[in-house]
Amino acid sequence: MSIFRFFSKQTSAPTARERLQVLLAHERASVGQSDLVAVLREEILAVIAKHVQVDRDKVNVTMERGEHVTTLEVDIEIPIKAGVRAA
Amino acid sequence: MSIFRFFSKQTSAPTARERLQVLLAHERASVGQSDLVAVLREEILAVIAKHVQVDRDKVNVTMERGEHVTTLEVDIEIPIKAGVRAA
Repeated sequence: MSIFRFFSKQTSAPTARERLQVLLAHERASVGQSDLVAVLREEILAVIAKHVQVDRDKVNVTMERGEHVTTLEVDIEIPIKAGVRAA
Repeated sequence: MSIFRFFSKQTSAPTARERLQVLLAHERASVGQSDLVAVLREEILAVIAKHVQVDRDKVNVTMERGEHVTTLEVDIEIPIKAGVRAA
């Protein structure tokens, strides 16, 4: 499971793009249990899309289900001119 | 900024509790810009609370604003008997 790669290479100079990363991890008590992460995934993407203009091809979603832990990683490149919608 | 601590100590035996961690990181293009993470924070917590019974005192929220990157870390211990509500 890749940790937040862009943290390790934080450039001092302002970057020409914006980026939003979301990492979700659910540690289950029992093995066969339903997947909370799969349930949350669409709703969290919908919350983000409400506030940020998102190009579908600039959204990278990775989900990994282990025996006890399921992780979801969402990596979104935000177009500069759009940036954040007024809340 | 602490990375997902419980990833490093994944126990093979099933744990007696469930845990959900959310890590959000927004890398901004310009320094003074509004805080997307602060905008998303409440709505993401609301999405989670819809699907998981959350005890307020078992929710740990940490936000750190750096020059270019703002991070939000949410750490929720989920009571076993509650677990995930039927979606």
